[in-house]
Amino acid sequence: MHVLIIGAAGMIGRKLTAAIVKDGGLDGRPVDRLTLLDVIAPARPEGFAGQVDAFAANIADPATAERAVAARPEVIFHLAAIVSGDAEANLEKGYTVNLDGTRLLFDAVRREHERSGYCPRVVFTSSIAVYGAPLPDVIDDDFALTPLTSYGAQKAMGELMLADYSRKGIMDGIGLRLPTICVRPGKPNLAASGFFSGIIREPLAGLEAVLPVADTVRHWFASPRAAVGFLRHAAKIDLAPLGARRNIMLPGLSVTVAEEIEALRRIAGDKAVSLIRRQPNETIATIISGWAKAFAPRRAEALGFVADRSFDEIVRIYIEDDMPKA
Amino acid sequence: MHVLIIGAAGMIGRKLTAAIVKDGGLDGRPVDRLTLLDVIAPARPEGFAGQVDAFAANIADPATAERAVAARPEVIFHLAAIVSGDAEANLEKGYTVNLDGTRLLFDAVRREHERSGYCPRVVFTSSIAVYGAPLPDVIDDDFALTPLTSYGAQKAMGELMLADYSRKGIMDGIGLRLPTICVRPGKPNLAASGFFSGIIREPLAGLEAVLPVADTVRHWFASPRAAVGFLRHAAKIDLAPLGARRNIMLPGLSVTVAEEIEALRRIAGDKAVSLIRRQPNETIATIISGWAKAFAPRRAEALGFVADRSFDEIVRIYIEDDMPKA
Repeated sequence: MHVLIIGAAGMIGRKLTAAIVKDGGLDGRPVDRLTLLDVIAPARPEGFAGQVDAFAANIADPATAERAVAARPEVIFHLAAIVSGDAEANLEKGYTVNLDGTRLLFDAVRREHERSGYCPRVVFTSSIAVYGAPLPDVIDDDFALTPLTSYGAQKAMGELMLADYSRKGIMDGIGLRLPTICVRPGKPNLAASGFFSGIIREPLAGLEAVLPVADTVRHWFASPRAAVGFLRHAAKIDLAPLGARRNIMLPGLSVTVAEEIEALRRIAGDKAVSLIRRQPNETIATIISGWAKAFAPRRAEALGFVADRSFDEIVRIYIEDDMPKA
Repeated sequence: MHVLIIGAAGMIGRKLTAAIVKDGGLDGRPVDRLTLLDVIAPARPEGFAGQVDAFAANIADPATAERAVAARPEVIFHLAAIVSGDAEANLEKGYTVNLDGTRLLFDAVRREHERSGYCPRVVFTSSIAVYGAPLPDVIDDDFALTPLTSYGAQKAMGELMLADYSRKGIMDGIGLRLPTICVRPGKPNLAASGFFSGIIREPLAGLEAVLPVADTVRHWFASPRAAVGFLRHAAKIDLAPLGARRNIMLPGLSVTVAEEIEALRRIAGDKAVSLIRRQPNETIATIISGWAKAFAPRRAEALGFVADRSFDEIVRIYIEDDMPKA
């Protein structure tokens, strides 16, 4: 099987690539060819027996999708996007990459479909950012998408197009609304959501972390390992039970900041917790107050998507998979 | 005030133009300039004291929106679209006109906004087609958009962009999900919804009408006069109460085919009703079974949008406004 990963150099793309290479396949189906694509050339994975093509390309360039689809990969993971802050600051760039890039891919698939009947499985990463306040405490599968960022609007537009093209039989698509990924590895960044990971990651490294919101703040999380599991699962399952509604919110853990801190205490002790410095930030608190607190993702659960079991597990996954070894 | 109507040659566009000309304004605000635009040149209205520019142009042509927006109309009605059946049969054409055309307009507004701070009221006609089965019997304002046609997907994508650009302060937009318009004047057509109007319009003209579904079928209607009232109302009201959710389902009447027929009987007698010929059509019945039956459009009601009072009124409006005089 030939698998194409667009956005292969990102955090999730690298982990997905590694998981496919380690398994030699995708949930039981052997993978003999990998095409890896991103704006910077993805690293060529070591230890993969099959053919690998890894190249740098911008999905906003029409030639990119044509080239990527020409070899008719059976499974396409479309993870590429510019992130929320960038899309908010650069309106045209956001629509060009996140909307047009997605459309160019789907239209390249459509043209190959018209030529040859090609109909790949397309796994598209959407986002919890398609939801926007006011929201109920627990959001069900039928709740309206009312994004409060351009990024969220662009993801919701991609979802609509994916559902439409799947309904028309052009592709066999599924859109996955990923929970907020936690613990995100790497350096602290300026994202409003950064502290959710920072208050775990930094203390584990013996560093101070700033907490800008109240301990009572609640949000919806999945580990990077769970996210990669969602993508692999989405590549193999029968999507017929979804009918025409091809976009789903994924399971996650609804956890408060206080619960995050107690998980950290159980795993790394009081000393780690003492490195969390409370420094209230009204701007961040206001942004976060509009975010989803919890979901009842019945459709995804019925399809066998499984969340992390506890926030303790999320912390342990970070330690096992991503924490720099001393 | 300068008002631009894109899609001015269509049924609603012509009626909206006539209403503005008759009033000399838009709900109390004098209109001294009208720009009318459609793929075929709209008729120049008679009896309008101000300046009129009426021209043929395709909104999928980038020059069209630039030209239309250059004169900085205070109010823009964007009614232009290719219809559902055409968009379904011609996928590329549908996305080009209904999505790209809308985006070209919004981006022309954005560029003028960036140059001069321009921020017009934009009234965009969306559609009940943004909803798709399975649906609850009564749909509330928070229900997800899950269109089952490309037309519905394109309208939903336009809604997302309108909300995003309004949130960014580029325009002061509102998207109106129009109920199914009934009684639609003119000849019978091949639209699946055609019979809802046909079983009133044809018997009133002494002609036979085919009814392809059961009398129990229920749907959501507004008269053309109510629709024009919605557009005029949307042009003048303060949109701040909508917050970031700039797209609303409009009030309508939830009526069964049997109730339509009884209204016809009260107004035109048994002889008119006897001209309705029952000829069940599985294909049409299946399409219609996925459509919305009723809404609880609280947000639109709170903003003062008002539906027709009864189906009898809807029939009388057709007789007064549109029925060819003998």
